Amino acid sequence: AQPAKLLVLPGDGIGPEVMREVGRVISWLEKNRGIAFEITEDLVGGASLAEYGEPIRNEVIEKARAADAVLFGSVGDPRRGHVGFDKRPEVAILKLRQELELFANLRPAKVFDALVDASTLKPDVVRGLDIMIVRETVGGIYFGDPRGIETLPDGTRRGINTEVYTTPEIERVARVAFEMARKRSGHVCSVEKCNVMESGLLWKEVVTDLHAREFSDVKLTHMLADNCAMQLVRNPRQFDVIVTGNLFGDILSDLASMLTGSLGMLPSATLGAVRADGKCAALYEPIHGSAPDIAGQGIANPIAQILSFAMLLRYSLNLQDEAKMVEEAVSRVLESGLRTADIMSEGMARVGTSVMGEAIVREL
Amino acid sequence: AQPAKLLVLPGDGIGPEVMREVGRVISWLEKNRGIAFEITEDLVGGASLAEYGEPIRNEVIEKARAADAVLFGSVGDPRRGHVGFDKRPEVAILKLRQELELFANLRPAKVFDALVDASTLKPDVVRGLDIMIVRETVGGIYFGDPRGIETLPDGTRRGINTEVYTTPEIERVARVAFEMARKRSGHVCSVEKCNVMESGLLWKEVVTDLHAREFSDVKLTHMLADNCAMQLVRNPRQFDVIVTGNLFGDILSDLASMLTGSLGMLPSATLGAVRADGKCAALYEPIHGSAPDIAGQGIANPIAQILSFAMLLRYSLNLQDEAKMVEEAVSRVLESGLRTADIMSEGMARVGTSVMGEAIVREL
Ligand SMILES: CC(C)[C@H](C(=O)O)[C@@H](O)C(=O)O
Ligand SMILES: CC(C)[C@H](C(=O)O)[C@@H](O)C(=O)O
Repeated sequence: AQPAKLLVLPGDGIGPEVMREVGRVISWLEKNRGIAFEITEDLVGGASLAEYGEPIRNEVIEKARAADAVLFGSVGDPRRGHVGFDKRPEVAILKLRQELELFANLRPAKVFDALVDASTLKPDVVRGLDIMIVRETVGGIYFGDPRGIETLPDGTRRGINTEVYTTPEIERVARVAFEMARKRSGHVCSVEKCNVMESGLLWKEVVTDLHAREFSDVKLTHMLADNCAMQLVRNPRQFDVIVTGNLFGDILSDLASMLTGSLGMLPSATLGAVRADGKCAALYEPIHGSAPDIAGQGIANPIAQILSFAMLLRYSLNLQDEAKMVEEAVSRVLESGLRTADIMSEGMARVGTSVMGEAIVREL
Repeated sequence: AQPAKLLVLPGDGIGPEVMREVGRVISWLEKNRGIAFEITEDLVGGASLAEYGEPIRNEVIEKARAADAVLFGSVGDPRRGHVGFDKRPEVAILKLRQELELFANLRPAKVFDALVDASTLKPDVVRGLDIMIVRETVGGIYFGDPRGIETLPDGTRRGINTEVYTTPEIERVARVAFEMARKRSGHVCSVEKCNVMESGLLWKEVVTDLHAREFSDVKLTHMLADNCAMQLVRNPRQFDVIVTGNLFGDILSDLASMLTGSLGMLPSATLGAVRADGKCAALYEPIHGSAPDIAGQGIANPIAQILSFAMLLRYSLNLQDEAKMVEEAVSRVLESGLRTADIMSEGMARVGTSVMGEAIVREL
């Protein structure tokens, strides 16, 4: 078999140190499961800005295009201070999404039994929580034109952004959500603000039509974005799959993650369209940020990055067994009582990044 | 003294029944505090649609303009089924905001000691919570042009909305937030998505400049909207005043309200520009909706509507003492153990809408 071609982009802050732990898992899989990887690593975000004067080079985009999957760390480095809007580290991830047409961001919010007390919500409210948010990531107000800041003749300045969604953009991401729901509890909740935004009205119509045409076996409900934020706090377990646009998805998926109380545990995948070679472009990243405040101290939790790699095994390489092995190793390590600082609680054993990584490999 | 001219708009669902309890408080103030009110009542929302074929008549807008303040119930009536985008009940509140230039929505999220257990969050996380969200309400993506749904030559449909903010629009709402913070704990957190939206970049710059020019005694911080959603769940007491645009404010204020676990308790005020007569237009409404599922059963909680009226006494009529009297009467009734169904807990006495209203008047 051809080796699996991965592009690894550790990025800024804790990115490189949590990515190192994925390296251990990769070595283990090579040695013990006979899986061949061909790995290229490169710079993105603040790290790339420092070296090349831009948050991501076209060359890196091309490497991403050529890879079977991209494993991304995190970007953002406040120590670099004010850089122009075009040079900010976030451009790296935004460009990768857009250039590779990575349109469906899958963000699970799952409460691990061993960590139910880490949540600020009462255990009875979040125990067993398992939500999948499917967020559209190449459209909406993030990329619509016109955009910018203009100065009017009288000196007043105007900031403008445009939310645009077309029928096919909505359909393709809704399709991912419906298919996902079929493998889960069979319920999709579509979220917009159709009571004030026409783009939300179109969103709702397109999702409703697609449902009637192809997915009537799945239960479909609709919810306004403000109500969804409330319901996620009031009774989050009412949700199975949530599908929504770029901006609402950004906010609601972060909110849902925080319900678990353990951001350092949560992976994500962003999938693109099927390419000419029959594969689809995909990028995997932890949902936590670059956490510059704790970078370099060896205390960051590597689990979200490792679980992102498990998602990569499952979705991009179709290695279901290996994905499961990694996920179960993580669960067992947690049950054994090891904790990084972010998920530490009384009576557990506090460990650093590399001890956690080693423990997971040992469980494999 | 001239009587205080109020326009009362009960609206749909539970609106009329909770408004009735405010009527008792008004009668009490007339009798016992010698305050004269001149009250006009009218229809809005589904109720107006049924009677006049539109969610709000121009005549009602004119009455609102002529009043010292508007006391609003809630709108929305799903039983009326599908009406066009222009006819939806929400148009009533959107038009009132826009026509009266009610640009600053003040949404307190406060946890009453007696109700700390009503929250889905752990008591230690929300005890003493007292946040004021100042949401811009006549600009942003709610009102920007171009907007609508268009069909392209190839049959694809496109939904479009535009987010627009100008320097003066941002300044005036930020000013309200800074002034509010001076009377509270002296901290404003300004929220946008300046890492992906230029309108957010302008927002941040204008708030920063205004702060430097006029409010350097207030502490100003900035936060991205997605992070703010997380922080509201992780540690909500870090906030004092939050100022943000229309769309983020919609979502984040609902989220913050739900942290208290008792929506039926929370009032809001929306203030406008100072008018020629030296007064400023203002509208007061509970943050809960029309709750059609429990309408007409006499079990709705009238407290949010009564506390909205207390805000009216304070902000529009400058009756500080009377506002305080009403608020304290509410606290005492809660301490005495009376509860409507929505805030019921073990060992308390469950009462309906009118018993709760009467009890509050008795405490006055
Ligand atoms: C880094 C930033 C541009 C990004 C976003 O807003 O999409 C982040 O918040 C995310 O959710 O992936
Ligand atoms: C009724 C609706 C238009 C409104 C809004 O979205 O602004 C409501 O959700 C609110 O927050 O007042």
